[in-house]
Amino acid sequence: MEHPQTTFTPADERAMRRALELAASPGVPLGPNPRVGCVLIDDSGDIVAEGFHRGAGTPHAEADALARAGATARGTTAVVTLEPCNHTGRTGPCSLALIAAGVRRVVFAQPDPNPVASGGGTTLREAGVEVAQGLLLDEARALNGVWSFAVDHGRPFVTWKFATSLDGRSAAADGTSRWVSGRAARLDTHRLRALCDTMLVGTNTVAVDDPELTVRDTLDQPLERQPLRVVMGERDLDPGRRIFNDRAETVHLRTRDPHAALKELFARDRQHVFLEGGPTLAAAFLEAALVDEIVTYVAPMLLGSGTSAVGDLGITTIADAFRPTVTDVTVLDGLDGEPPNVRFTMTPGKRI
Amino acid sequence: MEHPQTTFTPADERAMRRALELAASPGVPLGPNPRVGCVLIDDSGDIVAEGFHRGAGTPHAEADALARAGATARGTTAVVTLEPCNHTGRTGPCSLALIAAGVRRVVFAQPDPNPVASGGGTTLREAGVEVAQGLLLDEARALNGVWSFAVDHGRPFVTWKFATSLDGRSAAADGTSRWVSGRAARLDTHRLRALCDTMLVGTNTVAVDDPELTVRDTLDQPLERQPLRVVMGERDLDPGRRIFNDRAETVHLRTRDPHAALKELFARDRQHVFLEGGPTLAAAFLEAALVDEIVTYVAPMLLGSGTSAVGDLGITTIADAFRPTVTDVTVLDGLDGEPPNVRFTMTPGKRI
Repeated sequence: MEHPQTTFTPADERAMRRALELAASPGVPLGPNPRVGCVLIDDSGDIVAEGFHRGAGTPHAEADALARAGATARGTTAVVTLEPCNHTGRTGPCSLALIAAGVRRVVFAQPDPNPVASGGGTTLREAGVEVAQGLLLDEARALNGVWSFAVDHGRPFVTWKFATSLDGRSAAADGTSRWVSGRAARLDTHRLRALCDTMLVGTNTVAVDDPELTVRDTLDQPLERQPLRVVMGERDLDPGRRIFNDRAETVHLRTRDPHAALKELFARDRQHVFLEGGPTLAAAFLEAALVDEIVTYVAPMLLGSGTSAVGDLGITTIADAFRPTVTDVTVLDGLDGEPPNVRFTMTPGKRI
Repeated sequence: MEHPQTTFTPADERAMRRALELAASPGVPLGPNPRVGCVLIDDSGDIVAEGFHRGAGTPHAEADALARAGATARGTTAVVTLEPCNHTGRTGPCSLALIAAGVRRVVFAQPDPNPVASGGGTTLREAGVEVAQGLLLDEARALNGVWSFAVDHGRPFVTWKFATSLDGRSAAADGTSRWVSGRAARLDTHRLRALCDTMLVGTNTVAVDDPELTVRDTLDQPLERQPLRVVMGERDLDPGRRIFNDRAETVHLRTRDPHAALKELFARDRQHVFLEGGPTLAAAFLEAALVDEIVTYVAPMLLGSGTSAVGDLGITTIADAFRPTVTDVTVLDGLDGEPPNVRFTMTPGKRI
């Protein structure tokens, strides 16, 4: 087997940085596909054509660049942020398109982790195209962190969000919970929801709190593009609950098993679940080690009693406490005269 | 009655700033007396002598300055941060000493709120000394904020400190609690303890946790000067508990009533109580509206069960939540690779 080339020219790197920039173009709709950019350069390092992927159902980045280059693609080096695909989906395999266009050399950053689509590098080499990989790999992976995670693990990335009073309560004794966190924290939550493709709660939350579970802007208006709303649990639900309104799509998964729920969601091309369920649902995900990120809003309020923000985790002694790794702590200044809230962002550093 | 003079010269203000500086001299031991500084100036505004109070049992600031000035005190203006005292304690009344020394005019910042000692201004005026008050009053009050509070209210200022996990627990299910907060937060707690003259816990904390309740430095060595250790409650305690060791003085107040406890502590010249008791004791102080400041350390740890950091406050619905006013939020970076903790400093904005 041929050893992959691992040296790159300054022109390669310049082109890759441009390809990363193209991939991250604003306005590209999030979807099940990764962000990809492609730049064709000639032997002098000058750009012949550029392209990027605009979301499911549109041409891949390589196809986009090749279409713009036309006959001038022949003899160029294609610099791509992700290994060219090798399979026929809604579009044909990019590996074959590059070969057909007479591209002489292909440089890509991240190998395609998707078993269905990978193998493009091998196909290109076998056709006599020079192939080099790994240039700016970290930057390329970061561009599609959640997508890479989901493909690597065969399930969506799970962000668990909860809000709590200073004394660990998510609702007062009578069940009222509007609001524990301040407006700044609630707006921040909508910002995070908008970065996900799925919001997940349990049937109990729907029955008790009746959330609409949409993403709203600072004027409290729903955004045009809404994540999928998912409620899991075996209980039947009143179809009049707000989660079933027509502002977004909703799925009821009739399972209590986090593994089963994530498997089903992955099959539906979901890559990033925002878990906003109550303490019991969150504890089930934690115990199954299916939480990848924890976002906690702490509000300077005391309730003294009421619903615990976190359910029983089976921990009996302090040595076994669940101590996640903190990646960020941010003080969110209060709006409209409200007090500040604090946001902790964490990753589960160890298995509980 | 003569109207107090309310205009001051630039020389008065310069002298008062210097007097404030003297009052805040480092190394002055904290005690039941306020910090006071005094500067004698001549008619040109030049300093004739300076003095400040060095703690209970030592001369007052005025006496200190007069002693240094000797005969040159005659005809000067005495600029003092606090109204000269009018009573004979361990030292004679400063009002009479100033008159005897032939001081022509007295400018002070803060009227003495202590009914036992006040009236010095009147005595001076009646003896024909010009008196002006209120110059840099806020600065002078801030210098002795806790002392002023205690004298005004007839009880010590109470700082309630508690540490909590992100989910509102102060101990795990088996009672273990070392440690919820990180080393940085524990060092910060010792810093705050050292600013108080009294540390207060309940009998239950002594029985369960057996704290030594001393102030220790960053090398975990006890400081030379220790606040009074107070345990309150009706239960008999094992004299072998660490709180009864010889590293500091300890008092057992046999009451469960916060009012009674603070009355007794005020009678013992205590001005600042650091309340570190468990949730039940803290709830009793909160319900009696006897908490003046709340310091909370939040550690990024989940326990899921165990002792609630805050006891029942009789709150049943979110509208009645206790929402203190936040005066500061600080992220305390972790030491030795520990995660950051967050410190909230608050004042009870409304009665619960």
